[in-house]
Amino acid sequence: MAVNLSPPDPTQLFPVPGIELSYAMAGIKKPGRKDVLVMRLAPGATVAGVFTRNRFCAAPVLLAKHHLKGPVRALVVNTGNANAGTGKEGLKRALAVCNAVGKATQAKPTQVLPFSTGVIMEQLPADKIANALPSLRAGSWLDAAEAIMTTDTVAKACSRKVKLSGGEAVVTGIAKGSGMIHPDMATMLSFVATDARVSRSNLQSMLKRVADQSFNCITVDGDTSTNDAFMLIATGKGPSVSSRKDLSILENALTRVSQQLAQAIIRDGEGATKFVTVTVERGRNTAECRRIAYTIAHSPLVKTAFFASDPNLGRILCAVGYAGIKDLDTDRIDLFLDGVCVVKSGSRNASYVESDALAAMKKPEFTVRVVLNRGRTSATVWTCDFSYDYVKINAEYRS
Amino acid sequence: MAVNLSPPDPTQLFPVPGIELSYAMAGIKKPGRKDVLVMRLAPGATVAGVFTRNRFCAAPVLLAKHHLKGPVRALVVNTGNANAGTGKEGLKRALAVCNAVGKATQAKPTQVLPFSTGVIMEQLPADKIANALPSLRAGSWLDAAEAIMTTDTVAKACSRKVKLSGGEAVVTGIAKGSGMIHPDMATMLSFVATDARVSRSNLQSMLKRVADQSFNCITVDGDTSTNDAFMLIATGKGPSVSSRKDLSILENALTRVSQQLAQAIIRDGEGATKFVTVTVERGRNTAECRRIAYTIAHSPLVKTAFFASDPNLGRILCAVGYAGIKDLDTDRIDLFLDGVCVVKSGSRNASYVESDALAAMKKPEFTVRVVLNRGRTSATVWTCDFSYDYVKINAEYRS
Repeated sequence: MAVNLSPPDPTQLFPVPGIELSYAMAGIKKPGRKDVLVMRLAPGATVAGVFTRNRFCAAPVLLAKHHLKGPVRALVVNTGNANAGTGKEGLKRALAVCNAVGKATQAKPTQVLPFSTGVIMEQLPADKIANALPSLRAGSWLDAAEAIMTTDTVAKACSRKVKLSGGEAVVTGIAKGSGMIHPDMATMLSFVATDARVSRSNLQSMLKRVADQSFNCITVDGDTSTNDAFMLIATGKGPSVSSRKDLSILENALTRVSQQLAQAIIRDGEGATKFVTVTVERGRNTAECRRIAYTIAHSPLVKTAFFASDPNLGRILCAVGYAGIKDLDTDRIDLFLDGVCVVKSGSRNASYVESDALAAMKKPEFTVRVVLNRGRTSATVWTCDFSYDYVKINAEYRS
Repeated sequence: MAVNLSPPDPTQLFPVPGIELSYAMAGIKKPGRKDVLVMRLAPGATVAGVFTRNRFCAAPVLLAKHHLKGPVRALVVNTGNANAGTGKEGLKRALAVCNAVGKATQAKPTQVLPFSTGVIMEQLPADKIANALPSLRAGSWLDAAEAIMTTDTVAKACSRKVKLSGGEAVVTGIAKGSGMIHPDMATMLSFVATDARVSRSNLQSMLKRVADQSFNCITVDGDTSTNDAFMLIATGKGPSVSSRKDLSILENALTRVSQQLAQAIIRDGEGATKFVTVTVERGRNTAECRRIAYTIAHSPLVKTAFFASDPNLGRILCAVGYAGIKDLDTDRIDLFLDGVCVVKSGSRNASYVESDALAAMKKPEFTVRVVLNRGRTSATVWTCDFSYDYVKINAEYRS
């Protein structure tokens, strides 16, 4: 029951010249579902990535980081097993997958980036993946999006075209959620590709800014996974991008595709029934705005109130109060729910009537806006509510 | 459905000479329930307190802190309304309650400490409390425990006697939970009293250590309330305590009573079906042990796995990994569930079989033990699982 999220329209997902997509059903966890994706890149493609900061980072993350230092010719993603908490044996198996994919794609093992998602602390059946590679089928971006789904209920993909001085370029991306969604690049898997030609260093510096505007602005439950990664790929088969203007146009397109994917992850958050934008405005710096926004977005009490459409908005004030901003002057704070001013100068707005807030909260999407009135910066976080189904999905995930 | 928690046996709750308890039904939120508690103290009693660190601290907390600077003759607690997020009007109303209780107990308003718990951001009906004071009824510690309940399903009180060099002293305490339970003195309301004679400064220094061993070791949902407080009261009607040995005996009794109350709050945590002890051992310092223990205890993914008795223990490793300990060497970490070694040196223990962990998790109480193997300190946190009922209770709290 994703919130205002439909499956992507395949006719609107533009192929990216320089990338061949193929998938297999390896039966890693369950038979008969797409669970392996291989993305083969044209020679000369550039790739940039950001990875989980979890100290227990998974074997494939360690290898991907290492292989990213040289040229990349293929990416392989499996679902059903995260290959995390698996020690040296896990590394060996991740390398075995790179070997097998290298053979299948005429690349060196070190030119393959591996990604895994699924259950933690079980050894990866690398042989199943290797055995499935001969039966790889060419696929579309929709197939690719489907092949990386785990508890997602809707495949996540989107696409845009941009006009650059050297011609038109395509930006197409896919992502998977949908639990363990948290900021600071420990969010999920997402691969966004363009056929534009971009230098490695330009791509890497764009990546950081794009991530900060998209995947680093979302949270479902505050849990930070061991595996997750966001990769930007530029195949170089399309127009060359090096002027400041072109770089800016391309970055804008990458950001919009990534934001749409990031928001799709929240819309399809585990058990989500509401999509909530939390904005903290007029703070002293971005860090304090983000900290307060995330404290609100993580509070189980706030999230259950969202679920119930209960304007028990004191819970939001309470979360602002314990966000750990030591010199916060609560007498200056205003709180809005969509257009409704709930709190004025730190206490209940005299003209506030609960039915107004109730009407806003009953909608599947609304905005919580906290105005600190102590500076000029702001931050936005997208989150979802906390429902019976969140508990159900996570209590029954493996059964 | 509290976990292994029965209502207190009234015959085992010893009166504390020097404290008169009385309660009223003021109809603050609902008619016909005990919702006001007055504790009248003998002259010369000493009181020490720690309060919420939430920046949005409630009006009664501000007043109680202020009044605590002088002698205290009475404490008044109301449920049904937290008087938080209520601005200047809230302070005025809290003071009105102190005035009324002062009159009723022949004390000055500044000698009264007010406490409130309940819904945030609604003005306190102070007149209802004042009007109810003439009908105060003398009560027992069980009545007192019942009068401060909100979403608690079981009243929380316990009692011990200790032998000191000057004779026997009594320690009796009450507490209320049961959501918004979090460390660092922002937990709940608890009042623990003894008839021993203890200097104000000795009482205050004991308080900090007692809180760190009890109420600062629990969490239900990571939310830190605007109102909560832990108060130690020494009426001075019993034996005088000043020698190091007597102070230590008394502190030990205060700690044990407070731990029992703190654990009772978790056992009766909103929706709790499991009582879980999380211990982190052999860390470099207490701070990192506590941080890891709390990260595990706060993770919704871990807590839903507890609820499901699902030994999906990778989620615990994952939480250890994102606790933010930058130089943590995951290859040294061992993880135990009760006696079962699940993880050895950072990956799955070769001889581990899931059915052993499952058997432990099916019990209503078990211990998660993380051994960091990098130092000599340890920390323990008590928590509960995350169930359908947590969502239900918090989604429906006000209806």
